[in-house]
Amino acid sequence: MNLLFLGTSAGVPTKTRNVTGIALRESKGKGWYLVDCGEGTQHQVLHTKLSFHSLKAILITHVHGDHCYGLPGILASAAMGGRKEALTIVAPAGIKAWLEATFEATQLCLPFELQFICADELPSVEFTNMLVATFGLSHGVASYAYAFTERKVDAELNVEKLVQKGVPRGPLWGQLKQGFDIEFEGEILKSHDYLFIKKPPRKVVIAGDNAQPELLGKACVEAQVLVHEATYTQEMAGKAGEVGHSYARRVAEFAESVALPNLVLTHFSPRYPLSSGATPSIEGFRAEAQSVYSGRLYLARDFLEFTLDKSGHFREVADE
Amino acid sequence: MNLLFLGTSAGVPTKTRNVTGIALRESKGKGWYLVDCGEGTQHQVLHTKLSFHSLKAILITHVHGDHCYGLPGILASAAMGGRKEALTIVAPAGIKAWLEATFEATQLCLPFELQFICADELPSVEFTNMLVATFGLSHGVASYAYAFTERKVDAELNVEKLVQKGVPRGPLWGQLKQGFDIEFEGEILKSHDYLFIKKPPRKVVIAGDNAQPELLGKACVEAQVLVHEATYTQEMAGKAGEVGHSYARRVAEFAESVALPNLVLTHFSPRYPLSSGATPSIEGFRAEAQSVYSGRLYLARDFLEFTLDKSGHFREVADE
Repeated sequence: MNLLFLGTSAGVPTKTRNVTGIALRESKGKGWYLVDCGEGTQHQVLHTKLSFHSLKAILITHVHGDHCYGLPGILASAAMGGRKEALTIVAPAGIKAWLEATFEATQLCLPFELQFICADELPSVEFTNMLVATFGLSHGVASYAYAFTERKVDAELNVEKLVQKGVPRGPLWGQLKQGFDIEFEGEILKSHDYLFIKKPPRKVVIAGDNAQPELLGKACVEAQVLVHEATYTQEMAGKAGEVGHSYARRVAEFAESVALPNLVLTHFSPRYPLSSGATPSIEGFRAEAQSVYSGRLYLARDFLEFTLDKSGHFREVADE
Repeated sequence: MNLLFLGTSAGVPTKTRNVTGIALRESKGKGWYLVDCGEGTQHQVLHTKLSFHSLKAILITHVHGDHCYGLPGILASAAMGGRKEALTIVAPAGIKAWLEATFEATQLCLPFELQFICADELPSVEFTNMLVATFGLSHGVASYAYAFTERKVDAELNVEKLVQKGVPRGPLWGQLKQGFDIEFEGEILKSHDYLFIKKPPRKVVIAGDNAQPELLGKACVEAQVLVHEATYTQEMAGKAGEVGHSYARRVAEFAESVALPNLVLTHFSPRYPLSSGATPSIEGFRAEAQSVYSGRLYLARDFLEFTLDKSGHFREVADE
């Protein structure tokens, strides 16, 4: 599984950081998911190897423009690029209404179906290779985190338990092994109840804007990586008097409290220039978070890519 | 007056060309007008000296996404940048409805007023230094051209005619001299009827998508510059079977027929790479247009800037 940051600025784009967009790529094949789609996300995609044809879903964390104003354009470009396959959109209800108004006002008729799933109902969404769970956050508007768990896990069937339950050897066993729940004699059998899991599946949590990281306790169970906004440092948060966002220390304290192995901070206020020599320095975020967090800490920047390998090891992908 | 191209691609952005956005700067001060605002226009502005504080108006030629999807983001960024002054938007009615739906869905509350002028009524809009006239074009949806004429012209009052008319010497004379029409004894007196104009005012026509350049005959009277889309070459237009856009030869023939001194072609299909060595080459547009046009021909590219001086001379601004 790879994480590729397409935009890491809060509110407005800067010369070096676009507004929010995060690509999560499946470990096999070219399938990918886009979390948030600020204006210009499609322009960023042009500078990567990602293709609109292999995009599985777009998930929007909340309705603020710096997280969704790129949505009409990316859909229009996918259409002009010849996409025919249905596309899943997981987003708050307001996004659906807005897209419909946009299609009508700008006479955009997509040649592919949009399968809209309402985030407000905190859905669990099953893709072929990925399970996505939704968790509520705290922001001025409804905001969500999406937890991506790989479905095809490294596991052996618990044959003894299956025989005892009377499940016949065959396709049902295969489905359970691949991580799919099955229905058997009117009962739902959960895949994970019939598997010896050798290694925990890869799991990445990507959160939207959020003033209360502690709301992510359940989402982060068995996650190797949390991506969370840190719009401010603690000092700047105090001065800004802003209540809808987190600051670096607050997020790091939460990550430490749940023993999260990897934390990526992003969505930095545009007041913080990219270069480490500038004032106020982006490195202030690192120092503040590291003072309370003993896991591996990363500060996102545009086009920074990470890989999470099978054994749960997370690292930056070197520039090619 | 300066023209700065912020986006010159048709339909979708490419790595080297953004979708449509054209800045027209007043000859004095920092005031500027934005014609069309495709997605990512605000990102392009970041790489220029233009400021959202000195933006006088945004004029949208038609509702297609590649001409307007950057509008919500640029307004949000102007707001976050502290703009308080009212902003004029000249656009088809659909844009007003879409902006209202966008503001509601994404909870965007602007700290400045939008003064919406409906392009469908073919308005003449008076700004302090500029007169903008609207002309209808031919496209799949209602599409418009905007003709920008400088108001402060190099002129002398026709004193004899004013005295004959009985207009008292004073502020009314001043207004007429500055290019403003006045009301006198229940009658509208047109400024240009009471002036000896030494040099024709600078005039630039910027057209939206348009399959029939000849519709611009009236708009181009006394214009020094026409900016018009040439999405295709003639050969490509035939293959594409597309009927809403122009091709290079067609626009150039029109420009020749009205003896237009300067023609800038833009809005090129993304099939044409920027580099002159590539195939199909953008230079095909030049050859095709030059075969029928004897004026000065320019092919736009992103960040190309032109200046139109007082004497009507139009030229590229050298890169700094």
